[in-house]
Amino acid sequence: MAGRLPALWKRFSSTITPRPIPPKAHHHAPIPDHAFPRGYVLTGLHAGVKKTGALDLALILSTTPDPASAAACFTRNAFKAAPVVVSEEVLQRNGGTARAVVVNSGCANAVTGKQGMEDAWAMVRATDALSGADKAGANQTLVMSTGVIGQYLPIAKIIAGIQSQAAQNNSLGSTFDAWERAAKALMTTDTFPKLRARTFTINGKEYRMAGMDKGAGMIHPDMGPPRTIGQLHATLLGCILTDAAVSRRSLQSALTYAVDRSFNSISVDGDMSTNDTILVLANGAAVTGSGILEEIDEERDPAAYEIFRDEFTAFATDLAQLVVRDGEGATKFITVSVEGAATYADAHLIASRISTSALVKTALYGQDANWGRILAATGSVPLSTPLDPKRVSVSFIPTDGSPVLPLLVNGEPEMVDEARAKEILSVEDLEVRVQLGIGKESAKYWTCDFSYDYVRINGDYRS
Amino acid sequence: MAGRLPALWKRFSSTITPRPIPPKAHHHAPIPDHAFPRGYVLTGLHAGVKKTGALDLALILSTTPDPASAAACFTRNAFKAAPVVVSEEVLQRNGGTARAVVVNSGCANAVTGKQGMEDAWAMVRATDALSGADKAGANQTLVMSTGVIGQYLPIAKIIAGIQSQAAQNNSLGSTFDAWERAAKALMTTDTFPKLRARTFTINGKEYRMAGMDKGAGMIHPDMGPPRTIGQLHATLLGCILTDAAVSRRSLQSALTYAVDRSFNSISVDGDMSTNDTILVLANGAAVTGSGILEEIDEERDPAAYEIFRDEFTAFATDLAQLVVRDGEGATKFITVSVEGAATYADAHLIASRISTSALVKTALYGQDANWGRILAATGSVPLSTPLDPKRVSVSFIPTDGSPVLPLLVNGEPEMVDEARAKEILSVEDLEVRVQLGIGKESAKYWTCDFSYDYVRINGDYRS
Repeated sequence: MAGRLPALWKRFSSTITPRPIPPKAHHHAPIPDHAFPRGYVLTGLHAGVKKTGALDLALILSTTPDPASAAACFTRNAFKAAPVVVSEEVLQRNGGTARAVVVNSGCANAVTGKQGMEDAWAMVRATDALSGADKAGANQTLVMSTGVIGQYLPIAKIIAGIQSQAAQNNSLGSTFDAWERAAKALMTTDTFPKLRARTFTINGKEYRMAGMDKGAGMIHPDMGPPRTIGQLHATLLGCILTDAAVSRRSLQSALTYAVDRSFNSISVDGDMSTNDTILVLANGAAVTGSGILEEIDEERDPAAYEIFRDEFTAFATDLAQLVVRDGEGATKFITVSVEGAATYADAHLIASRISTSALVKTALYGQDANWGRILAATGSVPLSTPLDPKRVSVSFIPTDGSPVLPLLVNGEPEMVDEARAKEILSVEDLEVRVQLGIGKESAKYWTCDFSYDYVRINGDYRS
Repeated sequence: MAGRLPALWKRFSSTITPRPIPPKAHHHAPIPDHAFPRGYVLTGLHAGVKKTGALDLALILSTTPDPASAAACFTRNAFKAAPVVVSEEVLQRNGGTARAVVVNSGCANAVTGKQGMEDAWAMVRATDALSGADKAGANQTLVMSTGVIGQYLPIAKIIAGIQSQAAQNNSLGSTFDAWERAAKALMTTDTFPKLRARTFTINGKEYRMAGMDKGAGMIHPDMGPPRTIGQLHATLLGCILTDAAVSRRSLQSALTYAVDRSFNSISVDGDMSTNDTILVLANGAAVTGSGILEEIDEERDPAAYEIFRDEFTAFATDLAQLVVRDGEGATKFITVSVEGAATYADAHLIASRISTSALVKTALYGQDANWGRILAATGSVPLSTPLDPKRVSVSFIPTDGSPVLPLLVNGEPEMVDEARAKEILSVEDLEVRVQLGIGKESAKYWTCDFSYDYVRINGDYRS
């Protein structure tokens, strides 16, 4: 009753190996005093995808009478998994609305051909029946999967899991426990559930947003709006929910803007997945009276839209950083800041190259202030404006507010206090700042170090 | 008397850590029965750059009356080291001729400002005096350095080493021992000297070429002809010498062609250096009588040129592969073949992405036939022609001539014989072949796996 491909396919992914929760991760776990957005019910179930008995099916339903505005960014990978193709299709058919999200972990439903597409559609239809969307005649469910590649879903178990929530004693709810169970059902090699919430105010009115995501390896996303011709990444899934009313167009604009500066600016191992997806629903449940009049829209009220977009981007950045903190084998959380570039693209490209350099990442693991490797990575990418080595500076910025440690100033090596370098590098968090001295654009990237544990987790040596 | 920057800078590079010679590497060491090209004398000395007493200075002189044709490809890194800038300048001044090459290991003379430039020029002038080029009034020496970044050369020791060879009892010679000592003087973290020679025939006439190179980490070269605007890599140095007569223009053409298909198609860690340089000299010593009439030139005799170019490319590929075999922490030698692409650039880009994927490289270390990771890497790069997942096939090609093991055929996973997969993956050499099914272009890349030892060598954990 598991997938219909032979059991040996299970080993073709690292995403099902359980990892212990490192002590440092505990303080990143969700805390129960959040104010979650109104008008959503959620649950996390064990449907039977994971052999361990862990939660593997999340359901998220908007309870407002009208469907919510919906937007998404999908992997640009050429080998898009079935749930990615199906969610794109649902959004296209509905012009950007949805009532529900269904997610399974343990199996990515990727490289599964026609059967995989049928299974993803079956998840959509079963969840439509749960939300009542099937009566309106349109598919109103977005679907995501994460886990093993090249294996079919145990679809009967998943459908039974979804249908079990139609009964009166279902576990759908809006308590902290319900939110946390949904977040847990997304996990694969993650060591802790990733769930955050925040309150924000626009024009004197208070709204809420909450989000969950998952990912620890095959993390180097590059996601764009639906129907962009694109490429492939490793699996990052995220879902953000708000009770603000946002027009469909502006929701997609805000999401695309935010994803470029958050999820598309993190790297664990430089590898992209076939399933990367970030979804957002805005159901307007916070709005009383005429929702349309209060709808946030970039043309109707640009100032309000910008507040929303920036709140949303800051929130997406928090969620994205949780993935790096939980990176496979990670012992460090590194912010790479590139400043003084001619263009944002130049700054982003250099920050990405430093963040994926094996030599930089092993040096950081070894607590070695190796600016030569940072410089080599900086110089190795083609830019719109060539670098001038004499203007480049590199420094370490401690996160405790203590003084900056310059390593290279205008192309000249600095005398470095070894004890001070060691002190800064022994802390979990560190910012590496590269000043190019050319222009005014800057970009940030978040990455982790490269440890023995990364090799152990992914080498999975079989004797 | 070491570098003039504080001693602590020594630790800002991994390239001086000695590594033991792994048993598997012994059969890659040079063998003494080569026929080396005529008209060259060489030596390798300990000048005093390396504290260990190991050889650290190589001298290569052409003994023909006229200077040799010379060509080079240099790193495209924005932070070019002083010897790169100086060698570019020498070639430009001379219009592509040289009489000598001088190389030091142990110190890269990179990020060393004005002093670094003066030191590199001093090495050129001292070697010019040795070759007699100084009497002709022009600089005729090319210079290369490899080792620690951000440290000054112990230039007095190096100059004394060069000048010691002007005495009658110098060690310059053309024996196998002389060639091998020169190759040894290039080594940094290399575990064996890299030296090869071959004989080839054009229009019934026999010629010889020999070459040496070095490199084990910071290896992902991208080199171009002099004066291309460019970027930065990690250190690969190579020098190829032939006794054929080749016009300056055609020597550069053949080198650029060969480097794209050899040195620019290898990766150890995906990191590029500031010092990467490949030099070639063609002194025509094999030619008797009128050298000009027998000069190989692409316009005068395209067929002869193509034979030379292809011999040269095959030879450069042999030298490039030695670097991958000696890659830091490597236990596998992987050939990545991408076939059926619309363009060579598309095929090369995919092959490069697979060859640098941390997930693919750790899976190969773990002897895990993880085609999902190969597929994810394949789909993650932007191409001139989008991929069609239904046409993509992935297979393992054993190097012992036994049958191919298909993993994915036209987008459909194959039933894989686990025992057979394990058998193939337990051998040091393996070819991973990806067939795109779009066009007729193909490219190859050579890479190694990612092991605990890679992290140990580069993490250099300081307690």
